[in-house]
Amino acid sequence: MKMVRVGLIGSGFMGRSHTFAFNTASSVFELPATPVLELLADVDDDTAAAAAKALGFSRSTGDWRALIDDPAVDLVDITAPNVLHKPIALAAIAAGKPVYCEKPLAANAAEAKEMADAADAAGVITAVGFNYLKNPMVTLAREIVASGEIGEVVSFRGIHAEDYMADPQSPYTWRMDPEGGHGVVADLGSHIISIARYVVGPIASVVGQIATVTTERPVAPGASETRRVEVDDQARALVRFEGGATGSIEASWIATGRKMTLAFDITGTKGTIAVDHERMNELQIYTTGQPAGREGFKTILAGPDHDSYAAFCPAPGHQLGFNDIKAIEVKALMTALAGGAPFRPDFREAWEIQRVVDAVVASARAERWVNIAET
Amino acid sequence: MKMVRVGLIGSGFMGRSHTFAFNTASSVFELPATPVLELLADVDDDTAAAAAKALGFSRSTGDWRALIDDPAVDLVDITAPNVLHKPIALAAIAAGKPVYCEKPLAANAAEAKEMADAADAAGVITAVGFNYLKNPMVTLAREIVASGEIGEVVSFRGIHAEDYMADPQSPYTWRMDPEGGHGVVADLGSHIISIARYVVGPIASVVGQIATVTTERPVAPGASETRRVEVDDQARALVRFEGGATGSIEASWIATGRKMTLAFDITGTKGTIAVDHERMNELQIYTTGQPAGREGFKTILAGPDHDSYAAFCPAPGHQLGFNDIKAIEVKALMTALAGGAPFRPDFREAWEIQRVVDAVVASARAERWVNIAET
Amino acid sequence: MKMVRVGLIGSGFMGRSHTFAFNTASSVFELPATPVLELLADVDDDTAAAAAKALGFSRSTGDWRALIDDPAVDLVDITAPNVLHKPIALAAIAAGKPVYCEKPLAANAAEAKEMADAADAAGVITAVGFNYLKNPMVTLAREIVASGEIGEVVSFRGIHAEDYMADPQSPYTWRMDPEGGHGVVADLGSHIISIARYVVGPIASVVGQIATVTTERPVAPGASETRRVEVDDQARALVRFEGGATGSIEASWIATGRKMTLAFDITGTKGTIAVDHERMNELQIYTTGQPAGREGFKTILAGPDHDSYAAFCPAPGHQLGFNDIKAIEVKALMTALAGGAPFRPDFREAWEIQRVVDAVVASARAERWVNIAET
Amino acid sequence: MKMVRVGLIGSGFMGRSHTFAFNTASSVFELPATPVLELLADVDDDTAAAAAKALGFSRSTGDWRALIDDPAVDLVDITAPNVLHKPIALAAIAAGKPVYCEKPLAANAAEAKEMADAADAAGVITAVGFNYLKNPMVTLAREIVASGEIGEVVSFRGIHAEDYMADPQSPYTWRMDPEGGHGVVADLGSHIISIARYVVGPIASVVGQIATVTTERPVAPGASETRRVEVDDQARALVRFEGGATGSIEASWIATGRKMTLAFDITGTKGTIAVDHERMNELQIYTTGQPAGREGFKTILAGPDHDSYAAFCPAPGHQLGFNDIKAIEVKALMTALAGGAPFRPDFREAWEIQRVVDAVVASARAERWVNIAET
Repeated sequence: MKMVRVGLIGSGFMGRSHTFAFNTASSVFELPATPVLELLADVDDDTAAAAAKALGFSRSTGDWRALIDDPAVDLVDITAPNVLHKPIALAAIAAGKPVYCEKPLAANAAEAKEMADAADAAGVITAVGFNYLKNPMVTLAREIVASGEIGEVVSFRGIHAEDYMADPQSPYTWRMDPEGGHGVVADLGSHIISIARYVVGPIASVVGQIATVTTERPVAPGASETRRVEVDDQARALVRFEGGATGSIEASWIATGRKMTLAFDITGTKGTIAVDHERMNELQIYTTGQPAGREGFKTILAGPDHDSYAAFCPAPGHQLGFNDIKAIEVKALMTALAGGAPFRPDFREAWEIQRVVDAVVASARAERWVNIAET
Repeated sequence: MKMVRVGLIGSGFMGRSHTFAFNTASSVFELPATPVLELLADVDDDTAAAAAKALGFSRSTGDWRALIDDPAVDLVDITAPNVLHKPIALAAIAAGKPVYCEKPLAANAAEAKEMADAADAAGVITAVGFNYLKNPMVTLAREIVASGEIGEVVSFRGIHAEDYMADPQSPYTWRMDPEGGHGVVADLGSHIISIARYVVGPIASVVGQIATVTTERPVAPGASETRRVEVDDQARALVRFEGGATGSIEASWIATGRKMTLAFDITGTKGTIAVDHERMNELQIYTTGQPAGREGFKTILAGPDHDSYAAFCPAPGHQLGFNDIKAIEVKALMTALAGGAPFRPDFREAWEIQRVVDAVVASARAERWVNIAET
Repeated sequence: MKMVRVGLIGSGFMGRSHTFAFNTASSVFELPATPVLELLADVDDDTAAAAAKALGFSRSTGDWRALIDDPAVDLVDITAPNVLHKPIALAAIAAGKPVYCEKPLAANAAEAKEMADAADAAGVITAVGFNYLKNPMVTLAREIVASGEIGEVVSFRGIHAEDYMADPQSPYTWRMDPEGGHGVVADLGSHIISIARYVVGPIASVVGQIATVTTERPVAPGASETRRVEVDDQARALVRFEGGATGSIEASWIATGRKMTLAFDITGTKGTIAVDHERMNELQIYTTGQPAGREGFKTILAGPDHDSYAAFCPAPGHQLGFNDIKAIEVKALMTALAGGAPFRPDFREAWEIQRVVDAVVASARAERWVNIAET
Repeated sequence: MKMVRVGLIGSGFMGRSHTFAFNTASSVFELPATPVLELLADVDDDTAAAAAKALGFSRSTGDWRALIDDPAVDLVDITAPNVLHKPIALAAIAAGKPVYCEKPLAANAAEAKEMADAADAAGVITAVGFNYLKNPMVTLAREIVASGEIGEVVSFRGIHAEDYMADPQSPYTWRMDPEGGHGVVADLGSHIISIARYVVGPIASVVGQIATVTTERPVAPGASETRRVEVDDQARALVRFEGGATGSIEASWIATGRKMTLAFDITGTKGTIAVDHERMNELQIYTTGQPAGREGFKTILAGPDHDSYAAFCPAPGHQLGFNDIKAIEVKALMTALAGGAPFRPDFREAWEIQRVVDAVVASARAERWVNIAET
């Protein structure tokens, strides 16, 4: 069996999450290629060494460039702050190594395109961590739409709302660095856009609205010094899909009380489906043609008849968790690296997603509809 | 006790609903003025006579003008097709009689303004049947927002989706008559707009999107002859409130599977509330400041501590129904007619709602943001 | 059309509820017989006069015996405290008048049997107000079970839990008078028993458990003087149905937080249904034979395809309320009085329900299984 | 750091689940002792070798006795069929090795006591896999009850219902072997009993009811030959807790449509909590003392403020899965093995649980209340 020696850059929330996913995927799935926790890079040697020990990586470095050049690294895995995605990814591509990068891929569509073009030119495999696309209930949604079970899609209503920045005293973080891109429209909005594209199809145009409700935040927890927030903490858009459907998307990181409302309704001419990640093991479906007096939305619980679930548990209704979804992502990546089905979303797709993000912002600023083709 | 002799014009779904409401309000509430089912008008004498008998009206007429002129009619109640609202209402106003009219008030804002101006000039009391504003859970939402319990509102996300026209074989009706105004944005969209204004406040501008998915419908059930549908069956808009909040509204009568999804989420800086009329006796609320590990949305069930509920039932959780809400509307109207608190929404408010409806359509057609002040 | 002149005894919660129901039924349904609010009796002349005025009865009396003897009273409607049900009903039966009585019918099965026997001997129509049996979703449950849609019933799990006595400071009321019968097992337990019998069938035996958690209550709101509570405030039983199914029933009026949890799950060999009256317009159903990966419980919303709903509203999902259900009960009663379908549950059925109530208590006291036939 | 070399016996559903849990626990938590996948035993050498390879164990054997005697095995982990629990566990105890055993521990309470006594005499650490006790929401329930947040518990209503044997054509398995103990009351009932004891406290007496609805099952999938089923597929009991509360428990593996309804309501004098494992990341809570008109059940989503969650994910609402709960169990076991907090439930507690299981069955057969002390 092929080994894939992983070089992980970054060891925060997503760095840990990737590590768990490598381990779980190895444990749960029969992978065509096995990830090995080879090398971990972080901001300095000590941080990296401590993280490597905690996460189980064999070696560590304070220099991500050294990681890329390391001949024992087969896969460059980027969970560093957004502003670093591009330089790291380009260096990895230049070194001919496949790249697994957290979302959003880049600060803007131009950068994402540069990265996708570089990857294509170099012929390296790329993967971007839009992990919710790997939720079996999202995959089921895609299958239902693709199969025509709900007819022709006429409406998509999507949102990704959380409240992790709802408290105005929550401090400024790198997620608010305008150098790294937009605010919540990039951070969370990209997730719902990725789903819209995955399940319904390409978006043709948008008209957006963005807002920055909390304009100053402490530089650190409890600090009296504040820093100006320039990126959006709320964003919305009306959208037109290339296939003719219309809809709306929304993102907020100040949605008081919402913890993981990555939710969408898709209405078709013959049915409707709905998913909400606060109950990520459920999909609601209504189809026409039910007997009179027996019509209703059905709640499907994730089970072994759905994608990847059986590997975790043979019994339906027993629930997958957030980390399990990431393990499914790793399975897909290992499959691609072993020469199997290509990984989706790759850099090219992430660029497409980023184009919509940029279009929402551009549209909001210009106060007009923007065609994605303009971006 | 004062008597209010009702002259009802129209005896369809809403005509029956009004009648039930007059009866239930008399039964349940101690009204300051008592509605009396005096006279019913419909398209011809026979139809009117049959309806009057079925609904319990003392007399009937095939001529709505006769109804208005009838000295025994104290209140003109309009449940006729939308296209007739204006001529009937203006005639009633000219006769100095108060008017109770179903929504949408008029085909467009200009007509609504003409009607509101006439009513103001004549000093007659007017009332428009945006009945869901009388749902105690909507009133509770308004009270919660007004009291500051959820802080400053930053987001409104509203929708009114049903599927009564989802079947392309559902025939063309007067609701699709462009003479009577717009499509679903007027029929259902006006409800969610009325709530947005009632709970959050005036809307400053919108950018809208409308669609006509089903473009031909049978002229009658089962007919092979079809008629072209020119009005929208889906509509959406991004909105800016005058108070600074932003949000979105949506309306659809082809939302497969949705029966009464008149639903909204309102996010504030200190909390969030949500209501969905498919469970119209519930309001969800989350507020900040809950103890760590105990945060969550609370489901409040309608009960005697909420507006008007106690008159129906002394026990909480026992549920009000659709018709009960209309009875609360009648109570408010009788109160106004007896010299008590003014009825809201009146023609003036209905005009304000209609302006938003028109702005959504205008914006959609022009593909640009539209200020309500432009309409 | 036949008139049914109603003599109502009692004007509390249920007296008002009956009055609303007479009015609403007349308004909403085409009744084969029309109820007329003729005469109201209460504890004394003044109370009765005030109630008659408030509720719209033509006349009043402080003497319920006078009401029974009144030639203008066609129907004796009993909403007085439980302890009075028997003497009033027997007097009405002796006068040859049909009786509409609130539940529970009597203090115990022996009294209920005496009342049922008297009614049968006299040939008078009787009706007992187990109103939730008239909820269209309960009727739907019965139809589903009867049609075999969920196969053979193997399990019934029912509960009626509320919290109106959860506060130990809630004062002693006539509901706790042991002369009037048992406690919550009679007050609320009888509802879930009535549903069990209605939907599944006769109960053969039970083993019960009763408890009195709050043993002293103030004699009045805020009073320091207390009175000993001798009746149960929690009750449970395992049950065996004559048809072979097994199950459990439960009742509590100290179920903190529960407002109207009259809920049941019925499992069959081919499906399961569930209803909870806190969402009384919904029925959940699961049936076997769904396609792999598409299995799930469906939520059916009450609509015009279900019993009686269409008369209230032509649109599904618009919700009936508690009072509407009582109006459906009145419709059934008027139908029976006009010579149509017999009313169910009558005194005979109420006796059967009471036998189960008594058996639960007897079983709990004796700490053994009790056959209903023993009671 | 201490190593714990695991000898796993059995490689079915639970064998895999344990393996995942060892791996995930090592990945996610900072464990005081690290599990090592040392040796796997199964019914024969080939099966064991294949399973060891698939699950990542270093070595394998077809003889579980060899595993116990193997000096490189520090922990004996039993996921073999129930009938083998006792001989394996006693052998492990005799060898002085700690034992981690799946539930139910034994065929009956006598055997469980023998096992617990042996373990105590030998002073070995034991652990039984009642994994749902490790769900952070169950731990939260225990904390809420223990803290008095809902006052004194007055009612427990619990159920574990699934439908994995609902199809009469589902074949006979070792779970139905009466040598291995009772049916669903042992298999699933033991889970809800374990929760009742964990959250509320010891059970004093029960009156039970058991049923075998499907009395014949194919000996293999699709086989025409059938085998008689002697164990229960439905079980219920009324219970009295030593602390004075009363309640009911129920178990079914033929509950059509239920996939993972391990659910309970606990009512106290000051509040109520509810958990259902089909939504295992949620706990519902109602407490008295909420402001008038604002009372309601709150839905708490699992998050980093709850037990063990933060190690998986720093963000609330992101959901743990079934396998994550098992990893929390492994953490607790490693903690105990490293000399930290004792593991609960151990064999002694599993005996207590088994006593209740046996009492339900004995009570059902004798048709009388049974004190747990009798078993």
